[in-house]
Amino acid sequence: MDKLFARRSAKTGLAPGALVHIGEQKMKHVRLNLIEYGRETDFSEREISSPIECFPFKDKPTISWLNVDGVHQVQVIEEIGTNLGIHPLVMEDILNTGQRPKIEDFDEYVYIALKMLYWNQDHAEIESEQVSLILGDTYVLSFQEGDEAGKDVFDTVRVRIQGGKSRIVKRGADYLIYSLMDAIVDNYFVILEHMGEQIIDLEEELVTNPKVDTLQFIHNLKRELVFLRKYVWPLREVVSRLEKRETNLFEESTIIYLRDVYDHTIQVIDTIETFREMISGMLDIYLSSVSNKMNEVMKVLTIIATVFIPLTFIAGIYGMNFAYMPELQWRFGYFVVLFIMALIFFAMIVYFRRRRWL
Amino acid sequence: MDKLFARRSAKTGLAPGALVHIGEQKMKHVRLNLIEYGRETDFSEREISSPIECFPFKDKPTISWLNVDGVHQVQVIEEIGTNLGIHPLVMEDILNTGQRPKIEDFDEYVYIALKMLYWNQDHAEIESEQVSLILGDTYVLSFQEGDEAGKDVFDTVRVRIQGGKSRIVKRGADYLIYSLMDAIVDNYFVILEHMGEQIIDLEEELVTNPKVDTLQFIHNLKRELVFLRKYVWPLREVVSRLEKRETNLFEESTIIYLRDVYDHTIQVIDTIETFREMISGMLDIYLSSVSNKMNEVMKVLTIIATVFIPLTFIAGIYGMNFAYMPELQWRFGYFVVLFIMALIFFAMIVYFRRRRWL
Amino acid sequence: MDKLFARRSAKTGLAPGALVHIGEQKMKHVRLNLIEYGRETDFSEREISSPIECFPFKDKPTISWLNVDGVHQVQVIEEIGTNLGIHPLVMEDILNTGQRPKIEDFDEYVYIALKMLYWNQDHAEIESEQVSLILGDTYVLSFQEGDEAGKDVFDTVRVRIQGGKSRIVKRGADYLIYSLMDAIVDNYFVILEHMGEQIIDLEEELVTNPKVDTLQFIHNLKRELVFLRKYVWPLREVVSRLEKRETNLFEESTIIYLRDVYDHTIQVIDTIETFREMISGMLDIYLSSVSNKMNEVMKVLTIIATVFIPLTFIAGIYGMNFAYMPELQWRFGYFVVLFIMALIFFAMIVYFRRRRWL
Amino acid sequence: MDKLFARRSAKTGLAPGALVHIGEQKMKHVRLNLIEYGRETDFSEREISSPIECFPFKDKPTISWLNVDGVHQVQVIEEIGTNLGIHPLVMEDILNTGQRPKIEDFDEYVYIALKMLYWNQDHAEIESEQVSLILGDTYVLSFQEGDEAGKDVFDTVRVRIQGGKSRIVKRGADYLIYSLMDAIVDNYFVILEHMGEQIIDLEEELVTNPKVDTLQFIHNLKRELVFLRKYVWPLREVVSRLEKRETNLFEESTIIYLRDVYDHTIQVIDTIETFREMISGMLDIYLSSVSNKMNEVMKVLTIIATVFIPLTFIAGIYGMNFAYMPELQWRFGYFVVLFIMALIFFAMIVYFRRRRWL
Amino acid sequence: MDKLFARRSAKTGLAPGALVHIGEQKMKHVRLNLIEYGRETDFSEREISSPIECFPFKDKPTISWLNVDGVHQVQVIEEIGTNLGIHPLVMEDILNTGQRPKIEDFDEYVYIALKMLYWNQDHAEIESEQVSLILGDTYVLSFQEGDEAGKDVFDTVRVRIQGGKSRIVKRGADYLIYSLMDAIVDNYFVILEHMGEQIIDLEEELVTNPKVDTLQFIHNLKRELVFLRKYVWPLREVVSRLEKRETNLFEESTIIYLRDVYDHTIQVIDTIETFREMISGMLDIYLSSVSNKMNEVMKVLTIIATVFIPLTFIAGIYGMNFAYMPELQWRFGYFVVLFIMALIFFAMIVYFRRRRWL
Repeated sequence: MDKLFARRSAKTGLAPGALVHIGEQKMKHVRLNLIEYGRETDFSEREISSPIECFPFKDKPTISWLNVDGVHQVQVIEEIGTNLGIHPLVMEDILNTGQRPKIEDFDEYVYIALKMLYWNQDHAEIESEQVSLILGDTYVLSFQEGDEAGKDVFDTVRVRIQGGKSRIVKRGADYLIYSLMDAIVDNYFVILEHMGEQIIDLEEELVTNPKVDTLQFIHNLKRELVFLRKYVWPLREVVSRLEKRETNLFEESTIIYLRDVYDHTIQVIDTIETFREMISGMLDIYLSSVSNKMNEVMKVLTIIATVFIPLTFIAGIYGMNFAYMPELQWRFGYFVVLFIMALIFFAMIVYFRRRRWL
Repeated sequence: MDKLFARRSAKTGLAPGALVHIGEQKMKHVRLNLIEYGRETDFSEREISSPIECFPFKDKPTISWLNVDGVHQVQVIEEIGTNLGIHPLVMEDILNTGQRPKIEDFDEYVYIALKMLYWNQDHAEIESEQVSLILGDTYVLSFQEGDEAGKDVFDTVRVRIQGGKSRIVKRGADYLIYSLMDAIVDNYFVILEHMGEQIIDLEEELVTNPKVDTLQFIHNLKRELVFLRKYVWPLREVVSRLEKRETNLFEESTIIYLRDVYDHTIQVIDTIETFREMISGMLDIYLSSVSNKMNEVMKVLTIIATVFIPLTFIAGIYGMNFAYMPELQWRFGYFVVLFIMALIFFAMIVYFRRRRWL
Repeated sequence: MDKLFARRSAKTGLAPGALVHIGEQKMKHVRLNLIEYGRETDFSEREISSPIECFPFKDKPTISWLNVDGVHQVQVIEEIGTNLGIHPLVMEDILNTGQRPKIEDFDEYVYIALKMLYWNQDHAEIESEQVSLILGDTYVLSFQEGDEAGKDVFDTVRVRIQGGKSRIVKRGADYLIYSLMDAIVDNYFVILEHMGEQIIDLEEELVTNPKVDTLQFIHNLKRELVFLRKYVWPLREVVSRLEKRETNLFEESTIIYLRDVYDHTIQVIDTIETFREMISGMLDIYLSSVSNKMNEVMKVLTIIATVFIPLTFIAGIYGMNFAYMPELQWRFGYFVVLFIMALIFFAMIVYFRRRRWL
Repeated sequence: MDKLFARRSAKTGLAPGALVHIGEQKMKHVRLNLIEYGRETDFSEREISSPIECFPFKDKPTISWLNVDGVHQVQVIEEIGTNLGIHPLVMEDILNTGQRPKIEDFDEYVYIALKMLYWNQDHAEIESEQVSLILGDTYVLSFQEGDEAGKDVFDTVRVRIQGGKSRIVKRGADYLIYSLMDAIVDNYFVILEHMGEQIIDLEEELVTNPKVDTLQFIHNLKRELVFLRKYVWPLREVVSRLEKRETNLFEESTIIYLRDVYDHTIQVIDTIETFREMISGMLDIYLSSVSNKMNEVMKVLTIIATVFIPLTFIAGIYGMNFAYMPELQWRFGYFVVLFIMALIFFAMIVYFRRRRWL
Repeated sequence: MDKLFARRSAKTGLAPGALVHIGEQKMKHVRLNLIEYGRETDFSEREISSPIECFPFKDKPTISWLNVDGVHQVQVIEEIGTNLGIHPLVMEDILNTGQRPKIEDFDEYVYIALKMLYWNQDHAEIESEQVSLILGDTYVLSFQEGDEAGKDVFDTVRVRIQGGKSRIVKRGADYLIYSLMDAIVDNYFVILEHMGEQIIDLEEELVTNPKVDTLQFIHNLKRELVFLRKYVWPLREVVSRLEKRETNLFEESTIIYLRDVYDHTIQVIDTIETFREMISGMLDIYLSSVSNKMNEVMKVLTIIATVFIPLTFIAGIYGMNFAYMPELQWRFGYFVVLFIMALIFFAMIVYFRRRRWL
């Protein structure tokens, strides 16, 4: 249900910009993680307990990255937003996890909403998590729904920054936000591989042993693709708008990298469309294999009935009790009838062979 | 029928701009409600009996909002329109409840036609009401078809104005009209949730116990989506044109809010498309579950007929009355035949097992 | 056939601009009707016998409207065209009733081709008539295929001009041509209502009593929609081009009215698309109701056959004439067998109930 | 096969501009026909044996039209092309009969590739021939695949030039090339009429007597439409680009005529689309008439089986040979049983009537 | 699987520009082949063992073409890229064989990714190989996945350069890269011919002897078309962007040749779409031939059952053992019954004839 749409109705009637969390609470406490680095500064990372701790970052020359795990505590988001001069509508969007991937440019900062996707192996379905990114001139904010485990797709970016030699450290906040987007899109390929494996399994099952469940399975896959498409299609426009320099927070040299993300997005979309075509082909094969089976069943019925019904009729005739039935008294009447029956039987068999039913 | 199209034929042959009410009369008397407010003025709200009472508002510095419930009394609309210099074609559009969502810019005012939607739980269908909005520099006119109960989606906006602290009070007429549009679009999410629940119910029914009615139910949902789509798709263009500042009645700071309405509209459209895909998937499942059932029925018939027809034939043979049938005189002829029948029976069962029919 | 395409082949090989009538002759004699009016002139209307009579109108200050019923007499069209300096290709288009709705701007005049539609109640189909309009600075020419009855959709416009108080009289030729187009488009709504009623009838029939004819009926409706669409879709572009002021024969104030015609056209197209979706939904329902019926038939067959074939087999066994069949001599053998048969019968019934076949 | 695609593989690996004929050789010798005319010059037409004869035409004030029948002799094309300064790629295109309709502007001349279509009545299929046109300032070249008969669609143009009074003679080379294109497009309507007649025949057959062949026939028509579409769609763009004056070889006054060709092209496309919709509707009708027939067959089987199987069972019971079966001894036992059978029979009939199976 | 998508997941989490080979290793050692030529220089071709050997080419006036067979050795690509100042993302793209056809312009050089396609006759499927092309001002780099055999589509280009008289030798690097692209696109026609032959075989099989495998075969073809389309569609945009002179590395005179490649690409796409339509038509024919067969089977069953079940019933009646059954004692009872049975039999036959079942 949640995948279909977020239950927004609770918000109906509230003023725009009214801050209400829409979605599921996935962890208990909000976790704030602040990373600071720079070309000439050392890397520092710390968990902070209150947003207030981190606001000096605005005036520092370093690049600051504040990652927020958990968006269900309205006051945390509000405090951060108010201090950094974020528009109320953006705060509202961060809190609403049913957001569509989008980008909004407010000159001083850019707001980007994305979907992080995970593959749930148990239910063979996609799980989505909303990620909000805000890019200022020297800072990046990232908001995740989070979970208790606390492991996420951004870990690889963190490791690269820690190392200190990565390109990220030598560049500005725009390159950091690109790295985060790249990490998210790269992760989509993992989802696609999981789905691809399922499709290949399905294809094999379809050829060797199609079952009634197969249809349900095909439809589940199709449905997951519908959701995947819903999450990825708008991303195309998001990256395209960034790449076309609609905002001035991105440096020229970072644009080339955005083009790379754009290419990946297109590739993901291409693969989704290919999957869709393959699945619809599988549906056709399934349905026609069902009707082929039906045909076979009907053939067996027809052959048996067509062969034996006339024979039974003949037996029926000589089972009649008429007082005067000359054949009954013939010496070889019985054997003649048996012989005729055998003749009919083989004639039928030959007929079916001719029609390729046997 | 009314949902399919308004019965316009009554108007055929009349001059353009001829004022005729097209649609259903939903309430007895037209109700006029005037709200006045401003940054430095107190809030006032009153029911007025004749449009004339309210015309001084044009020269006041306050923001005036005249809400008209009921568009079936032509002379009321005409009086308002004539006094405010509204183009006859706009008056015609207000009276014609079969309008398509649209926007028309007349420099001094903007005319916006929208659809307010309600969910009729009893018939599981969408009910629509036409809402016409006119934005002047200091005034807003809203025309609803209304109903006797008099409760509507604009109530929350009224409450926010009354409170006096809302952002609405601090801003101009453009923000008020945005708030009204926002209230209408927000309400669409309620419709979507109702439909979403129906879809989930349907899916469950489809898996556990598909019935002949299920098809009718699926088609009803599909049909409601067709109407919903028809109402919402044009809205996208309406908001997009407003957001692109084609009119100068909107301030820069309100444009950001319009972008928010635009996002919501896109989200509604996205969800409608997802629903459509799901419903068409459900139709496939239903149809193939019907043909699977057929297959099962055919299998049962085939198994029974295939097993017993040959056996009956054998019984028929020994029911013949030939004078000379040697087997009949054998001591254990009867038991040998019974045994052969049992053999055939089990051979058949094994055969069906092999073909996975049992 | 004529609806599918006009038999143009007769024209193959002729020079472009060669004047040949393509289409059906719908009336015997061409009828010419000239109306003259103006702000300060009295209204005059007269039937004229030869086009020559009317040519002084070019130099008069009044607005002249020449309506031609019947386009099968080449020399009439040619005479009018040559006198008014109409391009030969336009004359060719007027004569060819298989024209697509289109607009062509020749600076000094604009040529507009439209389709007038009538609903033929007897055959439940749309009949189309080609209407050509030419707008000069002070005159309007209209060419209809006409019919003997001589009643047409322009009558209402004539009445409004006669009245003398209509907006038409106060405005130029551009407003007159708008009025004619408006009359034609308004008439499309009548067609839509007729089709809508048929769709509603069909839906009811589909639920209560679907017949083999129903399919044919659905397809007829679908086909009429194909034609309707073919006639209306290009109109959208025609009006849109007029509205975008591609020609300078239209005054600013008339443009607003054209926007209204444009809206109506979009509404007609919208409704056509909705009808199409509904009809394709009806086709689905029809087809699956057919297969549901088949299912029921199969079930009845299966139940009867499955119940009685085994019973008949048992009866067959005891109908065998073996000399030694111990059961036959039992005192209650007959009743025991009857009882077993009854047992099998009820077991079957229970089984079918369980599978929900009964 | 040739219609599917030209066998280009022979060319793989050759340099671009390498002159190789791709396609079928349709006539033995290439035929060169040169027509010269002008406003003040007399018309002259002659067959020439070598292209060299005709090259003085470049410096003459007259309009020269060189028509080449047969494109399989590479050296002829090469000689013409080299002398007139035609780009090697254009020569390659002329030789390759699998070309797509296209236009290429080389400033000094324009190259246009088109498809001439013929209706082969015997196989009920379209035959296509590639036509290449080159427009210089005072000359026109046309290349056809030709056939032995030597009759073509351009004959009517030739006749009009000969007559000397045609508009062609009074105008430049651009009007001549327009006339040739017009002749080709006009001919498409003949194809459409042939197909339209086939569709009407099919529809009738579908209603009165659908056969297994009907499906094959429907698919053949569908396939021809696929090819027709492939040939005509790109033409739209070709004419549109000419009409938008992308080349300066066309005079203003000829543009209006090109608009006419454009309209015809759109009309052809429109009709193709209508045909497609009708054919897909016919496919639906065919398929559902097949399943309706199946239904009827099943009903007959079910009625017969359902009526007689229980009756046969009853007869079977009284055919058993139990020593003690009281009914058998009853005086009217036989008649009572016959009466019961009749009762059951009529009850069944009534039941089927109720279900509308009879 | 590999065709579905490259297994990128191994790369997830790596920094952008990290050089990792994605794809299958198709040959053992990377092979480097350097060709140098010029208008006034002699042609030279040599295999080199290390990229370092070839870097002087940058300063030479000749055109240098370095072809790399095998992209699985990261350090080779890196060495070449670093020396020529190629962007790390481009190197990444060269190594990733799951690339989508694309073009990227870096002012000093242009990167083009393409797909070389081969037809695998054994599996009746398309095999793809990624080709990366880099165009500098005086050099061209080409990267292929390569295979042990070392034969490729570029051989024809090499031969033309060797000959020394080809247009390639007289022109710049831009013409060389065009020649390579042309060779690749030309090769697509070979693929299309192979598929076309398969389609024609299929069509014949469908008419003469459709089998259960046929469906699988149709779907395989459909699937190959999906892949083919995926490879060719983006190429259209690639060539279109080149042709529109978005890069300044192409000379005016080469643009005309690019237009030719563009035309070929469109032709390939056109043919793919035609194939798709034909295959979907074949699917329809297959499915309806399956249901036609079913119909025939059902008819045979129905005819036999309908004829013999009533007859068997009559025989059953006279097999009853009632003590008093007057008919049994009649002299000709038996023959009368036989006659009645024959009557019924022929009546049935006539009935089936009438219904066209026989």
